[in-house]
Amino acid sequence: MGCVSDFFTYETTKSVVVKSWTIGIINRVVQLLIFTYFVGWVFLHEKAYQNRDTALESSVMTKVKGFGVYNDRIMDVADFVTPTQGASIFCVITKLITTENQVQGYCPESEPKYKCKSDSDCSRYLGTSGGNGIKTGRCVGYNNTFKTCEIRGWCPAEIDSVAIEPMLEAENFTIFIKNSIRFPMFNFTKGNLLPNITQSYIKSCNFDPIHNIYCPIFRLGDVVRFAGEDFYKLANKGGVIGIKIGWICDLDQSDDNCNPSYSFTRLDSVSAKTSVSPGYNFRYAKYFKMENGTEYRTLLKAHSIRFDVLVYGNAGKFNMIPTLINIVTAFTSVGVGTVLCDLILLNFLKGADQYKAKKFEEVTESQIKTAISTSNEIYKSTQTLSLRYDEKQSTDSGAYSIGL
Amino acid sequence: MGCVSDFFTYETTKSVVVKSWTIGIINRVVQLLIFTYFVGWVFLHEKAYQNRDTALESSVMTKVKGFGVYNDRIMDVADFVTPTQGASIFCVITKLITTENQVQGYCPESEPKYKCKSDSDCSRYLGTSGGNGIKTGRCVGYNNTFKTCEIRGWCPAEIDSVAIEPMLEAENFTIFIKNSIRFPMFNFTKGNLLPNITQSYIKSCNFDPIHNIYCPIFRLGDVVRFAGEDFYKLANKGGVIGIKIGWICDLDQSDDNCNPSYSFTRLDSVSAKTSVSPGYNFRYAKYFKMENGTEYRTLLKAHSIRFDVLVYGNAGKFNMIPTLINIVTAFTSVGVGTVLCDLILLNFLKGADQYKAKKFEEVTESQIKTAISTSNEIYKSTQTLSLRYDEKQSTDSGAYSIGL
Amino acid sequence: MGCVSDFFTYETTKSVVVKSWTIGIINRVVQLLIFTYFVGWVFLHEKAYQNRDTALESSVMTKVKGFGVYNDRIMDVADFVTPTQGASIFCVITKLITTENQVQGYCPESEPKYKCKSDSDCSRYLGTSGGNGIKTGRCVGYNNTFKTCEIRGWCPAEIDSVAIEPMLEAENFTIFIKNSIRFPMFNFTKGNLLPNITQSYIKSCNFDPIHNIYCPIFRLGDVVRFAGEDFYKLANKGGVIGIKIGWICDLDQSDDNCNPSYSFTRLDSVSAKTSVSPGYNFRYAKYFKMENGTEYRTLLKAHSIRFDVLVYGNAGKFNMIPTLINIVTAFTSVGVGTVLCDLILLNFLKGADQYKAKKFEEVTESQIKTAISTSNEIYKSTQTLSLRYDEKQSTDSGAYSIGL
Repeated sequence: MGCVSDFFTYETTKSVVVKSWTIGIINRVVQLLIFTYFVGWVFLHEKAYQNRDTALESSVMTKVKGFGVYNDRIMDVADFVTPTQGASIFCVITKLITTENQVQGYCPESEPKYKCKSDSDCSRYLGTSGGNGIKTGRCVGYNNTFKTCEIRGWCPAEIDSVAIEPMLEAENFTIFIKNSIRFPMFNFTKGNLLPNITQSYIKSCNFDPIHNIYCPIFRLGDVVRFAGEDFYKLANKGGVIGIKIGWICDLDQSDDNCNPSYSFTRLDSVSAKTSVSPGYNFRYAKYFKMENGTEYRTLLKAHSIRFDVLVYGNAGKFNMIPTLINIVTAFTSVGVGTVLCDLILLNFLKGADQYKAKKFEEVTESQIKTAISTSNEIYKSTQTLSLRYDEKQSTDSGAYSIGL
Repeated sequence: MGCVSDFFTYETTKSVVVKSWTIGIINRVVQLLIFTYFVGWVFLHEKAYQNRDTALESSVMTKVKGFGVYNDRIMDVADFVTPTQGASIFCVITKLITTENQVQGYCPESEPKYKCKSDSDCSRYLGTSGGNGIKTGRCVGYNNTFKTCEIRGWCPAEIDSVAIEPMLEAENFTIFIKNSIRFPMFNFTKGNLLPNITQSYIKSCNFDPIHNIYCPIFRLGDVVRFAGEDFYKLANKGGVIGIKIGWICDLDQSDDNCNPSYSFTRLDSVSAKTSVSPGYNFRYAKYFKMENGTEYRTLLKAHSIRFDVLVYGNAGKFNMIPTLINIVTAFTSVGVGTVLCDLILLNFLKGADQYKAKKFEEVTESQIKTAISTSNEIYKSTQTLSLRYDEKQSTDSGAYSIGL
Repeated sequence: MGCVSDFFTYETTKSVVVKSWTIGIINRVVQLLIFTYFVGWVFLHEKAYQNRDTALESSVMTKVKGFGVYNDRIMDVADFVTPTQGASIFCVITKLITTENQVQGYCPESEPKYKCKSDSDCSRYLGTSGGNGIKTGRCVGYNNTFKTCEIRGWCPAEIDSVAIEPMLEAENFTIFIKNSIRFPMFNFTKGNLLPNITQSYIKSCNFDPIHNIYCPIFRLGDVVRFAGEDFYKLANKGGVIGIKIGWICDLDQSDDNCNPSYSFTRLDSVSAKTSVSPGYNFRYAKYFKMENGTEYRTLLKAHSIRFDVLVYGNAGKFNMIPTLINIVTAFTSVGVGTVLCDLILLNFLKGADQYKAKKFEEVTESQIKTAISTSNEIYKSTQTLSLRYDEKQSTDSGAYSIGL
């Protein structure tokens, strides 16, 4: 029974209360600062009372609309959007260098650096890559005026140094983005087609960051402008634009407050700065067959604006565990102010030595030894006595005493 | 030497032990709760003794198998899967609206909203996008009964309002998923083709969540059903299904316990809810050339089910540093209970004032001043004396005393 | 006024200073260890004084160069790279099994397992998937020597068991990677084309991990070798290689120190180990039309090396809030050593009982009751008296006393 009652005890620290205006004000101000930090930053700003789901599940569908005129042809979506699947990454081709009717064979190189006078000029290119095909080492007539090294490959060789204009109609193309998100932790689902968006609104609206912040239809020229880029330059050289959709949701509030926010940025900023390899382009081919079975192709070098739709976000909802943990952390952190106050009290305040004497009690090994030896004789009375005599107040000690 | 011995001291707080059943029981219960929280939640549930690698490296390969009959043709994988590369995102086309033999030219619009009586009806469409090509402003005969506005573009214009059935054979297609993962922190590699999966098993199995939870072959109809969707509706309108592979691994256990778990969800839930733009479809074209060099194309509008294979996971392994940090945190957190207990002890318990007197010792500035002035005269003896006389027990103080 | 002065007080713990060499040295050593941990690990290694941005924005462009000879044809980039857009994931086709001139129709199956003698052998395949088309249940002559089951589908059926060599020229292909990154928190942008990379350097360099660690041009054979794989095997069966670009940046230092680091790994390691479905291949088709409008196609089974360019990274920059929080944590954590020291002092040290007596003061409920009752009579004097008489030093208590 005595053992049980010994167990059910409560141990609390013995404290010294210093009634001093100086340290008292410092103490309360420090406590106030810590408290303000926790209430203002941790709880109100960081919402530490919430469980947070950052593992956003997202699906993006895109659809480009518009018509361009290029090389006296009308281009529609199936012509200038690639890949065609309408996923989160797609390219809008703005400039095309077309090399039609290529067949496997031998022909002269088209690049000026391969100009030659005789076969000996070409032999040094044997085994090198670059150019439009495998070098044969022969020098053949390119046209009536000059010769270039011969290649084996798809002929005729592509001439990609022609100056052609980009398809400027692309500025008026529209991108429709359909984005669904889900926060699996809270099983919360939402899409960027908000409930108040009607069929008629969607047919007429264009996103702008002031009046139509939830319209899911984006004019291509606007997107480029919002990203701080010049449309003509971008269409001419190619580039990558990021369309970012942010979902920062406080699920303690109504669902109507969980809305997407759109932002735009150029992702390949290195392309804009460096003179080495500016812009963005790629080559692809369309394959055809003649009646006799010979394959031929149209090679296309496409400069394009690539769009990456990036979805990010997180959602928070009140939960007991983080709330409790943070309240406890806040309370214990308020005690952290004592580190600073002790430093001031025991070192810089007038009467620091007296405060030390009050705060610290000293026990030395010799006291303990005396106590043990005497307690072996007459336990109770002598112990108290011996301690009383040897007891003295410590004046130098403590981790926070910098005077050591 | 004295300086060194002054340094090698140990400072511990002086404590008051309250032998009271009420507060003793509260104290121990609070300590037990905190301790249980740490052992149960932090250590056993959250595995706080482990280092955790969340930077999963993953590679996904997919292969669809099956044959469909559509428009009296047999469709195989090369026909209905796009992109063809077998990556983590792929579309299975379930409905195709085909417009064959389109060439560049002029023709009447196919959509009913462009019906017209005379050219003046069409002029208002000049410069607008929408429809199947660039409007010329002329009204031309669509057939014998009515006229529509003329367009310039790929002709004839697509008629996408035809009611056709989806390819229902798709329900029996199978998706084979090969997934390798690596946790770089522990250099741990594993794949979803578990060691006990044999060639013969893989040829006959189909994933189901009860008997074949590790079979990497999924019937397309099953996947849609597991995601809670109706196959016919989805195949008809198109949609996006997420196949999630989770790797939550405890590497302190045997490798055999680190296995994938599959789950299925519809990602474009917004498509299912909203009437604006339901489903998922995209257009693409196959290009051909006549003998005379004129290009023509087949335009395809494909409704499809897109599959996104999403891999997530993390792995934990015992490590000394997080273990130590969390043990220390646990021990110090047990002390947090004093905040609550002090609150009760010093405010609500019978004899609270007496407890305050025992817990708090008071020092005032006047005491300190007296001590300093007298210590200038006779240091040792007077100090003790003056302190003894002025000493009194504080009864109101403390951060946790709410009675202030 | 008294109330205000009562509020502006400072409460600090009363401490016992133990002047003992044993416990003093243990104490200081423990404190030193904790301090070293914080300075060395938390501050210097983990850079806890920085704000950290882990939400890297990245864009990747790739361009493959090179020519291969395959089936007596020259293959260029438009032939062997897919998808063609030059994004972060692309396949380099190294082996092609081509089935030309397939048309819709009826023909015998090509796989040996479908060999048959009569229609009855084929009826069991009715309704099964597998093979190259839908089984008709008939047994037809494959060639002069044997018969196989008939299929309906694209005919003739593909024969993919032919042994052909991969395109070994692929080893010398080069991959040019252009990577831009941005840390949105600090609005810091950089690319892997470092400012000191010139046009002439980029034309001649090849990445190697010793001399050219910032060259953005990678020989395909080198990448495979750095990933620890054999090029021939990989080209023959296909596989997935990860090219990882890491950006670990300390933005307190000069921008010139924020540079990419490249590493290479095989991502589909499961393919290498298992005998079930080794390698990586996919099928796609090129579609053609005869003059009479009949569609035919070339089916291609491509074994390829897929490259995934994975960009990861984080950046840190000095910030006041994490610095302060971690300094405070460090200071309070130094106090954690007392848990260990108290354990030793109060249980294992010689004179433990005496130390306990010094550390703990005991208050019992009976004392408090006496104090209350007497204080009702003569408050001030009696209270002090009653407490003095009953006061005794506690010798068994405390959370850290394991002798209970």
